[in-house]
Amino acid sequence: MNQRDIPRPTIAIFDSGVGGLTVTRAVVEALPAANIRYLGDTARLPYGTKSAATVVKYALQAASALLQEPADALIVACNTASSCALPALQRRWDLPVIGVVEPGARRAVAATHTGRIGVIGTERTVQSRAYHDAIAALDGSVQVDALATPLLVGLAEEGWFDTPVTDAAIRAYLAPWLVGDRREIDTLVLGCTHYPALSTAIERVARELLPGGVQLVDSASTIAAELVQHFGGAQQDSRGLVEMLATDELDRFTRVGRRFFPLKNVQMRVVAL
Amino acid sequence: MNQRDIPRPTIAIFDSGVGGLTVTRAVVEALPAANIRYLGDTARLPYGTKSAATVVKYALQAASALLQEPADALIVACNTASSCALPALQRRWDLPVIGVVEPGARRAVAATHTGRIGVIGTERTVQSRAYHDAIAALDGSVQVDALATPLLVGLAEEGWFDTPVTDAAIRAYLAPWLVGDRREIDTLVLGCTHYPALSTAIERVARELLPGGVQLVDSASTIAAELVQHFGGAQQDSRGLVEMLATDELDRFTRVGRRFFPLKNVQMRVVAL
Repeated sequence: MNQRDIPRPTIAIFDSGVGGLTVTRAVVEALPAANIRYLGDTARLPYGTKSAATVVKYALQAASALLQEPADALIVACNTASSCALPALQRRWDLPVIGVVEPGARRAVAATHTGRIGVIGTERTVQSRAYHDAIAALDGSVQVDALATPLLVGLAEEGWFDTPVTDAAIRAYLAPWLVGDRREIDTLVLGCTHYPALSTAIERVARELLPGGVQLVDSASTIAAELVQHFGGAQQDSRGLVEMLATDELDRFTRVGRRFFPLKNVQMRVVAL
Repeated sequence: MNQRDIPRPTIAIFDSGVGGLTVTRAVVEALPAANIRYLGDTARLPYGTKSAATVVKYALQAASALLQEPADALIVACNTASSCALPALQRRWDLPVIGVVEPGARRAVAATHTGRIGVIGTERTVQSRAYHDAIAALDGSVQVDALATPLLVGLAEEGWFDTPVTDAAIRAYLAPWLVGDRREIDTLVLGCTHYPALSTAIERVARELLPGGVQLVDSASTIAAELVQHFGGAQQDSRGLVEMLATDELDRFTRVGRRFFPLKNVQMRVVAL
């Protein structure tokens, strides 16, 4: 992105639910002056088990609702939507549309020493091979191995960030990386916005299972750094407004969402899609 | 229900996804001559984390699609939809509309000796207090204690029916029943159509945790028995047709659905809602 000088940019962020609040937190920390408008498509979550066609349809509808009022950038804070719907979104709107896959891929390629990167994500993200493509575009010699780990979303939403159940599930999912070549991964991309909440447990189990452990990569901080570069002038004395939209009633959004983002001083409302 | 004599009734069954296939299997076994038309609302699953208003809206739309062609009964094979949307469905259509809550409640009241019944289900089912109400209507002296156990859906969909992760999750969920009065439950209602797939693990963990174990109750066989009584004449030499509709592409429906129902000789198609 080229640098622009907008003293108080409005960043629109969307996700299928509350997972994208992990990205939102990084953006707010990096750009406190920015206004944030977030939409969680809670009436239709999750996206990760749905077909690519359905995810594209939902993503276009969610972004339409979010961009009813103007914004300076749209962040697709959902790996599944980033994997399937980014070109459709970029064609539809004339503003920077930033997904989470490319920043994560970039950081993973910079981090790996062995040239073998693991990716965990939803079924749809893994089937899309979006991380394979993004990493191959950056460095064709890097090998990528992706695994669907859908239960980790439920664990994060339960708030079971670091429990015996969480460890057991991560161990079951990462076990294939003990076989043959796979043990050589040294970098693991958390390819779903829910997963950073489980990073302590993932790191511990990975250390047990994989010689030398792995370096975890998530896209939240990479995206935040990219926005700082883009909106370098986003400097104001006062903090920006944070507004949250959801497509279903706010009850559960608030209860689960506060596990990922402090929901104080946040305006919230429901939009029908 | 009063008995009618329909030699080959058509039973319409709907669920948010594939969980209702556990009910469908019981119906097909009890009434092999019946024609079955099933709809899984896979584009919008799960219902269990959504608001009551959204569940009612989705249930009415799903049933409309399913009843485009005539049927002799509609089974709401989803505890969440049965908990929130049964009256709305019964008002809208003039045919027997049967939910899973009342049959499960009836069987649980018949099974309990201690007069204390536990219920596990989705967040929405538990919040609706539908089992409390249904059991109170049958026997006001019975005490009901309901817990939301949402991760069990993901475990069943992963096919992790009987693994250390499953045991650990069930143990974490059932642990509150070790405290005080709760240990006196002797009957546990599986208040979500996914849970029967985990009954071996649930039974084992309950035996470990609760003195004397518990008797598990699910509504599938009760509903099947009710249909046999209603459609007593459903006797034909040949088996009925089984047709499956889904609101998202069939790929995942087929892959996950066959964990719950043999999908051979089944016609499948997508309907848009």
